[in-house]
Amino acid sequence: MNGPIVDRIIRKKKHDIMKKVKMGTRIFPIMPMSILGAKVDGKANFMALGWLSRVNANPPLIGVAVNKSHYSIAGIKENKTFSINIPTKKMMKETDYCGLTSGKNTDKSEIFNVFYGKLLTAPMIDECPLCIECKLVETVEMPTNELFIGEIIETHIEPQYLTDDIPDIKKIDPIFLTMPDNNYWTLGEKIGKAWSAGKELKK
Amino acid sequence: MNGPIVDRIIRKKKHDIMKKVKMGTRIFPIMPMSILGAKVDGKANFMALGWLSRVNANPPLIGVAVNKSHYSIAGIKENKTFSINIPTKKMMKETDYCGLTSGKNTDKSEIFNVFYGKLLTAPMIDECPLCIECKLVETVEMPTNELFIGEIIETHIEPQYLTDDIPDIKKIDPIFLTMPDNNYWTLGEKIGKAWSAGKELKK
Repeated sequence: MNGPIVDRIIRKKKHDIMKKVKMGTRIFPIMPMSILGAKVDGKANFMALGWLSRVNANPPLIGVAVNKSHYSIAGIKENKTFSINIPTKKMMKETDYCGLTSGKNTDKSEIFNVFYGKLLTAPMIDECPLCIECKLVETVEMPTNELFIGEIIETHIEPQYLTDDIPDIKKIDPIFLTMPDNNYWTLGEKIGKAWSAGKELKK
Repeated sequence: MNGPIVDRIIRKKKHDIMKKVKMGTRIFPIMPMSILGAKVDGKANFMALGWLSRVNANPPLIGVAVNKSHYSIAGIKENKTFSINIPTKKMMKETDYCGLTSGKNTDKSEIFNVFYGKLLTAPMIDECPLCIECKLVETVEMPTNELFIGEIIETHIEPQYLTDDIPDIKKIDPIFLTMPDNNYWTLGEKIGKAWSAGKELKK
């Protein structure tokens, strides 16, 4: 073998090859928990939501994937608005309750203090540290879910959750969901700076 | 005022109304960090990715939002495959390095032990506890990002990260990213069971 190939094999050996097993197709390890707000039949409704992500930088767009069976779907489609509310650890039971019950047979309009922002049909939860109001800009229909893409119109946060005028995630103390073990988790500790920690590996 | 309205006001007062401030439109608090793998020009390339979510239950689909400037885009479009690799806390520097460097001018094909699964063009990272290989099924073009929707074809995990045959997130010990403060965080503690913790609020 020539030099470069040998070098390459040696570099590859710096870690032992680990032995992975197949786990099928249903695993996605962890997501931040949120509560989606929508106005349905003139009333605020709330559902627990774990499937969401920012999807575009500019304009700021967020994608939420909602199972087609959910009561909130009709309200999002009718009003073309929804909200994303980030609950704090102390709201775990209320968050879970929003996932255990459906607006089809449970009125969830009174369980939180509801407020509205610029969009008049995106109910937000005053008890949540951080609330995001979104205008629906696109709906991508999937086999079992609707992927709603919303433009972030405004974000509302309690000043007590800010440090140096930006959201302090340790104060917000969010909840994470793991599946398929179905557990809720807290945030741990700060371990490094993004776009910085890897600089020492640059040659 | 009549009875129901008074009742409603009283119920609303069970929490004090908090005073929220507006934070603009760029805030989304926290996401799990991953490394996206793609084969570009015949070589494995890796980028740090914080914008991803499951988007459909059945078939299992995952959405990843990649800025159009990224080198990986061409490979994902050409091969119609990509991988999502979940790094553990100890891989923070390597994960950050993948975000600090571009495949345009940095060969990242040698920084990890790379393996392939059923899809022959979705390079996966052996050092990551959990790797997901995805087949591109849809591309939603956004103004600044491409939202790639992939079907999960297989998930690969190290047995050392399992407990009772399911992934143990505490063993995986993932990394989270917060913006705009740009910090990395660890997972905290288990605080409850999903689809259960809220049962006591049901009447």
